[in-house]
Amino acid sequence: MEKTYYKKMETVKFHVENKFDININEEFDKLRVYAEQCQPDWYGDGELIESFEREMAEFFYKEDAAFFISGTMAQQCMMRVYCDEKKIKKIAYHPTCHMEIHEKNGLKELHDIHSVYLGSRNSLFTIDDLKLLTDVACVVFELPQREIGGQAPTFDELTEMIFYLKQRDIKIHLDGARILEILPFYGDRAKEIFTMFDSIYMSYYKGLSGISGSILVGSKDHIDQAKLWRKRYGGTICHMYPYILSAKKAFSENKDKMHDYWLFAIEYAKLLELVEGIRIEPNVPMCNMFHVYFDMDKLSVIRALIKVMEAYNIALFNKSIIEFGDGAFTEVVIKDNYRHVPKLKLECAVKLFNSELKKLRKNK
Amino acid sequence: MEKTYYKKMETVKFHVENKFDININEEFDKLRVYAEQCQPDWYGDGELIESFEREMAEFFYKEDAAFFISGTMAQQCMMRVYCDEKKIKKIAYHPTCHMEIHEKNGLKELHDIHSVYLGSRNSLFTIDDLKLLTDVACVVFELPQREIGGQAPTFDELTEMIFYLKQRDIKIHLDGARILEILPFYGDRAKEIFTMFDSIYMSYYKGLSGISGSILVGSKDHIDQAKLWRKRYGGTICHMYPYILSAKKAFSENKDKMHDYWLFAIEYAKLLELVEGIRIEPNVPMCNMFHVYFDMDKLSVIRALIKVMEAYNIALFNKSIIEFGDGAFTEVVIKDNYRHVPKLKLECAVKLFNSELKKLRKNK
Repeated sequence: MEKTYYKKMETVKFHVENKFDININEEFDKLRVYAEQCQPDWYGDGELIESFEREMAEFFYKEDAAFFISGTMAQQCMMRVYCDEKKIKKIAYHPTCHMEIHEKNGLKELHDIHSVYLGSRNSLFTIDDLKLLTDVACVVFELPQREIGGQAPTFDELTEMIFYLKQRDIKIHLDGARILEILPFYGDRAKEIFTMFDSIYMSYYKGLSGISGSILVGSKDHIDQAKLWRKRYGGTICHMYPYILSAKKAFSENKDKMHDYWLFAIEYAKLLELVEGIRIEPNVPMCNMFHVYFDMDKLSVIRALIKVMEAYNIALFNKSIIEFGDGAFTEVVIKDNYRHVPKLKLECAVKLFNSELKKLRKNK
Repeated sequence: MEKTYYKKMETVKFHVENKFDININEEFDKLRVYAEQCQPDWYGDGELIESFEREMAEFFYKEDAAFFISGTMAQQCMMRVYCDEKKIKKIAYHPTCHMEIHEKNGLKELHDIHSVYLGSRNSLFTIDDLKLLTDVACVVFELPQREIGGQAPTFDELTEMIFYLKQRDIKIHLDGARILEILPFYGDRAKEIFTMFDSIYMSYYKGLSGISGSILVGSKDHIDQAKLWRKRYGGTICHMYPYILSAKKAFSENKDKMHDYWLFAIEYAKLLELVEGIRIEPNVPMCNMFHVYFDMDKLSVIRALIKVMEAYNIALFNKSIIEFGDGAFTEVVIKDNYRHVPKLKLECAVKLFNSELKKLRKNK
């Protein structure tokens, strides 16, 4: 049933989200104009990578930048640099931090760096949580907080927390995998947000839709040290140009679309409220993502979604539908595809989804 | 002077080696046929990566394989797995092992794994060196031994060493970055060579001329564990398809060229013997590489090479010319370009190089 769902999704024309739409040769073709006249990078050196790193450092108002093939590697390297500097092998972050739940304990296994949780799993941490901290080298913010549907503190809450930490000489790092996505929520106050942090990591394949790759920005000294760790990891690869070119393209073509994406997400979340027995987190999306909880089991949800695909050629969700207690859960991330889904058709599709779920609920 | 040399080299038509010839868009175009009908990999999963890993496991007569974005990462992960299994944080390798001199101490800094040197810097290690070993989890062979010009033990010497280690239950890993290049030297006894080792790493961008990337092969259990470490490193990247496609292409199109490359290297080394004051290591190349030592200082060598480029449009060497004591040193790696350099012209170029060096020597 699950396989049928994903197989079917690949053949469906309209997706609310972007995935299953990748033709590799077209991806390469799209890089063509960015690759013209470029010489490949060479173990982290060369004009292609260096000029892009300079551009990124400037964009984030930082001294320096290092391109990393993955955010996991970028953030672990930065944490190690801070812990060595502070001579404290402990950092603080939200319980759902990427380093905590998606990296198989890399930080502990590779660096013996331990962590303190800030706040509880299902909500943002606050200044009260920071006030309980003692002896950490660094506090990691994640804006938006992905695992709770892309929520973020208000600008004032954020400012207060940053101010508190700066007085205590604790390093402040931003997991900004999706930082561009949340800037509209902060009224596009990019400079004020970026300069709050000692270092920022951003991903090129979340909202920006690049192939892979990330950037780490910070002070010259910290980035130099992070590059040394990148080398130790085997992350200073002979040629990174496929990722760098893709990142250049993604950044220049997509960075200004985040406001649109956010509005799409708000619109779609509102539409989904028509469906009985689903809960959206957060109620009004703060960026281009939100989470959906169903009161029905995963297979019923998938069954209803297949009906919708058959009737309207629309995939309402294309990330995994995951078991969650007695119900199910999925993540919605809105990008360019949403523009191409006819509004009226989408509304009909959502209504059909609702009635199919109802039918299944009755038959239980 | 150095910059002029490299700048000039880019404009020269004939290179004995392959470099300065990369047009990124052409590189992507060459992947076109391999990308047709392929869906991108997804965090280490998907048919594209899995089928390639299966193909590689089979090629090396091993149970399983893992694609790694870099050899540094692949080998460190494997060493950690062996050290954990043996509960010994020590491995043995040649003093010029990649892990020793090109990874900024990654193995020690990330894993606290220490090393014992086998033999001396300027020659291969032998069974006598192995007999001095106590308490190591793993012995690393490098075939061919790159930093001494691509030398390798004879098949019998190798067999004797492997037999000795197997009796002592020490893990045997092959740094086979250039293993295909040295197979002709072993009479193409691939199966006999590959099955000597518990695990093998091979690079796709040495003799095979891929963009980057490597493969690690071994037992199912060891590869599973190595993949866990790959994840911890941030090496299980969202999309690795540019590298996998390039590796597929490189492997299928270039793996059978190594015999030719070897013969080219022998021919070229012989030709270079015409030049007074140079020494070639090894005297007769064992694969497609050898090292060249000059009795002249680096700048004189570069000066003479520029004269050759001006006269014949040929770059005799295109890797760095490096200071070495009072003289200089460079590495020669022969690949496809050698075919395209007219033999007679090459001979004239080498003779001119000799006479230019002579002139410079006289003027000192």
